[in-house]
Amino acid sequence: MSSPVCIILHFVLYFTIKIIKFTMAFKEGDWILLVWKDKKYLKQLSKGFNLSVKGSTLKLEDILNREKGEHINGFYLFSPTLEDILLLGFKRKTQILYPKDSFYVAFKLDIKDKKVLEFGTGSGTMTAVLSQLAQEVWTFEVVKEFYENAIKNWNRFNLCSNVRAFNKDFIEEDTLEEEYFDACFVDVREPWLYLDKLHTRLKKGAPCCFLLPTTNQVSMLLKALEKGFGNVEVLEILHRHYKVNPDRLRPEDRMVAHTGYLVFCRKTT
Amino acid sequence: MSSPVCIILHFVLYFTIKIIKFTMAFKEGDWILLVWKDKKYLKQLSKGFNLSVKGSTLKLEDILNREKGEHINGFYLFSPTLEDILLLGFKRKTQILYPKDSFYVAFKLDIKDKKVLEFGTGSGTMTAVLSQLAQEVWTFEVVKEFYENAIKNWNRFNLCSNVRAFNKDFIEEDTLEEEYFDACFVDVREPWLYLDKLHTRLKKGAPCCFLLPTTNQVSMLLKALEKGFGNVEVLEILHRHYKVNPDRLRPEDRMVAHTGYLVFCRKTT
Amino acid sequence: MSSPVCIILHFVLYFTIKIIKFTMAFKEGDWILLVWKDKKYLKQLSKGFNLSVKGSTLKLEDILNREKGEHINGFYLFSPTLEDILLLGFKRKTQILYPKDSFYVAFKLDIKDKKVLEFGTGSGTMTAVLSQLAQEVWTFEVVKEFYENAIKNWNRFNLCSNVRAFNKDFIEEDTLEEEYFDACFVDVREPWLYLDKLHTRLKKGAPCCFLLPTTNQVSMLLKALEKGFGNVEVLEILHRHYKVNPDRLRPEDRMVAHTGYLVFCRKTT
Amino acid sequence: MSSPVCIILHFVLYFTIKIIKFTMAFKEGDWILLVWKDKKYLKQLSKGFNLSVKGSTLKLEDILNREKGEHINGFYLFSPTLEDILLLGFKRKTQILYPKDSFYVAFKLDIKDKKVLEFGTGSGTMTAVLSQLAQEVWTFEVVKEFYENAIKNWNRFNLCSNVRAFNKDFIEEDTLEEEYFDACFVDVREPWLYLDKLHTRLKKGAPCCFLLPTTNQVSMLLKALEKGFGNVEVLEILHRHYKVNPDRLRPEDRMVAHTGYLVFCRKTT
Repeated sequence: MSSPVCIILHFVLYFTIKIIKFTMAFKEGDWILLVWKDKKYLKQLSKGFNLSVKGSTLKLEDILNREKGEHINGFYLFSPTLEDILLLGFKRKTQILYPKDSFYVAFKLDIKDKKVLEFGTGSGTMTAVLSQLAQEVWTFEVVKEFYENAIKNWNRFNLCSNVRAFNKDFIEEDTLEEEYFDACFVDVREPWLYLDKLHTRLKKGAPCCFLLPTTNQVSMLLKALEKGFGNVEVLEILHRHYKVNPDRLRPEDRMVAHTGYLVFCRKTT
Repeated sequence: MSSPVCIILHFVLYFTIKIIKFTMAFKEGDWILLVWKDKKYLKQLSKGFNLSVKGSTLKLEDILNREKGEHINGFYLFSPTLEDILLLGFKRKTQILYPKDSFYVAFKLDIKDKKVLEFGTGSGTMTAVLSQLAQEVWTFEVVKEFYENAIKNWNRFNLCSNVRAFNKDFIEEDTLEEEYFDACFVDVREPWLYLDKLHTRLKKGAPCCFLLPTTNQVSMLLKALEKGFGNVEVLEILHRHYKVNPDRLRPEDRMVAHTGYLVFCRKTT
Repeated sequence: MSSPVCIILHFVLYFTIKIIKFTMAFKEGDWILLVWKDKKYLKQLSKGFNLSVKGSTLKLEDILNREKGEHINGFYLFSPTLEDILLLGFKRKTQILYPKDSFYVAFKLDIKDKKVLEFGTGSGTMTAVLSQLAQEVWTFEVVKEFYENAIKNWNRFNLCSNVRAFNKDFIEEDTLEEEYFDACFVDVREPWLYLDKLHTRLKKGAPCCFLLPTTNQVSMLLKALEKGFGNVEVLEILHRHYKVNPDRLRPEDRMVAHTGYLVFCRKTT
Repeated sequence: MSSPVCIILHFVLYFTIKIIKFTMAFKEGDWILLVWKDKKYLKQLSKGFNLSVKGSTLKLEDILNREKGEHINGFYLFSPTLEDILLLGFKRKTQILYPKDSFYVAFKLDIKDKKVLEFGTGSGTMTAVLSQLAQEVWTFEVVKEFYENAIKNWNRFNLCSNVRAFNKDFIEEDTLEEEYFDACFVDVREPWLYLDKLHTRLKKGAPCCFLLPTTNQVSMLLKALEKGFGNVEVLEILHRHYKVNPDRLRPEDRMVAHTGYLVFCRKTT
């Protein structure tokens, strides 16, 4: 029986769904990940938006009010993940630390709700990853151009609200408390020059990670770590991707063979 | 000049440091990671504690009130990290997902402050990793023995307070809201049997990850994902460890060659 | 004292050295490997020869009568090795088997001074490698264009004098003796269709190798090999190259991740 | 119709087959490869021979007059290949060069019918591989125990008839002709000490290979090769084996991660 109450409830429900759908749908200003076959594009939706790939075309009006996961003109529409943002959205002024390495490092440093030190900031990709797990991240970058670029990267994607960034060489910082940090990540060319200073700023037993591209640097660092650090590990991470054809499953023809060596250790007394 | 105020302040400072030192020091009941050369031991400190490795011995009284990072009788003393706990502290009733894979997966699923679904729970290692990033994790395990073991693992190390665990096959769960979860991790033998159900429970565009040990399973899953899922990626992760001798740097002789294939995708409409 | 005999001996020696030097030097018609930094060029010396790389130029007259190993205008001059010829000199109508795989396979098949069967010939790279160790190689290729290309490849570089090539599907060959071959190498899409025939032509215990690009094919073949073959091994070979800077030693950024799976086995009764 | 000629021919054929079968069959003194599931045993057949694996047993009389490829009591019988001999038959007094590396190196050095220099000999595995392709191999080993062991290894398996072995440090050899060798393989701890001498003994443009286990040695060698050698390549070879279950195809759990770095170059003027 369609009483007035029923009718009202019906309308309420109808508009609630409309509103939810509207909230879930893509709007101007949103960042969107567009996937066309095995190609990915990270774009911000704005007037005049237009993407064309081998004859498939998308315009702003094709996307507005569409929902995540929809398939239009050969493109899938998704919200970008952190990985998409780091790989496709961050502007790079330096060699970056890739998700392949940074995702592993962040957990390995055991930083959940802890205080983390980073230097140098570079393009800010590692900072963004550390920031998701840590309570706070302090990061130092001596090159002004890099420092400013990193901050822009974070702001464009509303990341790193718990990060304090400094345009300064970590070695020159002298107002920090002793034994303040629970862990650190170091990505500079000559990390052995920073070990004494680093030692004073870390809590006892703090896990550390250093990224180094060459074996010569790894040897240099290992020698320097013999004093004041222990439980040293060196490793490299390789990701091997496969073609996603179920009837012809096989690895991709080529892969990334090297980004850097990861040196892990813990502060000792 | 040593005024009475000065003396009082001096005492306050002295005892504050004592108290902090006491708080930082190892006490009975604590879990401790003991590192002897390249061997690691995760132990809980209790009466009668005794560890002996090739002639080096540690007793409870050697450790009590010692600080993290100290070196005693050839052993380094550390608090265990999450990785140490997963590798050395969790009891295994099943093949586990190793940090090499789980640390990468958790970030790749983009679950910071989100709702995550997992099945099957297994020994609970992946749950513990997901739990650190996610807002809440719901996990399903059909085998009672595994379910109970996972819960014991979490409780022993005070992990997973934001996890809801069910001793039930995910397929039989029927009270869950539609489109509740932002992401999922699936570790069961025949994931293709769960895809229809899984599709109803995931939000639009939700990232998913499946772990599969064999290529035959990957082929089966890829075929099944063609309906309702897109942006599929298959990859495997290899870690290569090095001997930490600075003058003779070289990889370890042997390495883990395979744990499983990781299949990533996103829910589509 | 300079007697007439001495003078004559002197002249003899002088001309002998001249002749040897002339024999060792590059002449028109020779194949030459030119190495410019990390780039390699395989060329045949002929009138009008001219090679230009980023401003460095070589002409025929720069090279004639120069010796191997000389360095001219930024180029090193070498005789090409078998590997250089296979990688740079052979024309490809098909996916080829690379030295990374073929060099290992040839020795693994234990074919020194033995009779080897190959099908399909493809571009003839594997044939050229087998031919260096074996007494004789019989090779079958059903596609006329491939068959003719392979023969041209061998003739250009004076390779494969002990090879008998057939423009025919191996399955259709019916004049061969039973148990004639000591070993075989098989590179066709559906090798399982050939196993019965292959079994009759191989000596007892003969080692076999199959190249297959996909895991699905490997599974199919493994099932088929259960009858009539034993001691099965499956492997893949990865080569990782390094940048040759002594002060900054590190792997190349990218590498070949996959060519094919190698399945080895031996004929059983 | 059975004429006397027919009967005679019949007998001739009968005995010919008997003789061939007898020749093909295993006899006392033969080396045999026994394969039991994924285990391999290389044995010489002699009185009292007895092999027992998890309840499966083989005695001499089980094997005599059996043919290659036969399956008896769970064991396959095969003639050993060169790889089987190197891995299971050669006695090791030193770290050996594995087929994974040596099979590739031998072809890469382009030594078919050429003169090859090797030092040090070690256990003689590389010598055995070089010897199959080369015209002649000269090998130097300073440690008497290694030198004698290598010769014993070759003699046990009738290998290396074209090898001249010297119990001497290559640096001390002074009767060799200049520019005698077409190629060389070097496996000593400090190869840079030998480069001047080596240079005099190699033909112009000769390919060389050095095996080195550590990155520090590679850096040292690369620096030394800058004078007198060119076209330098550094690489490492990884083999990844699979479990041979067609329905559950997957890599082995563990693999060899490192044997050594291979440094290739060519003599320049």
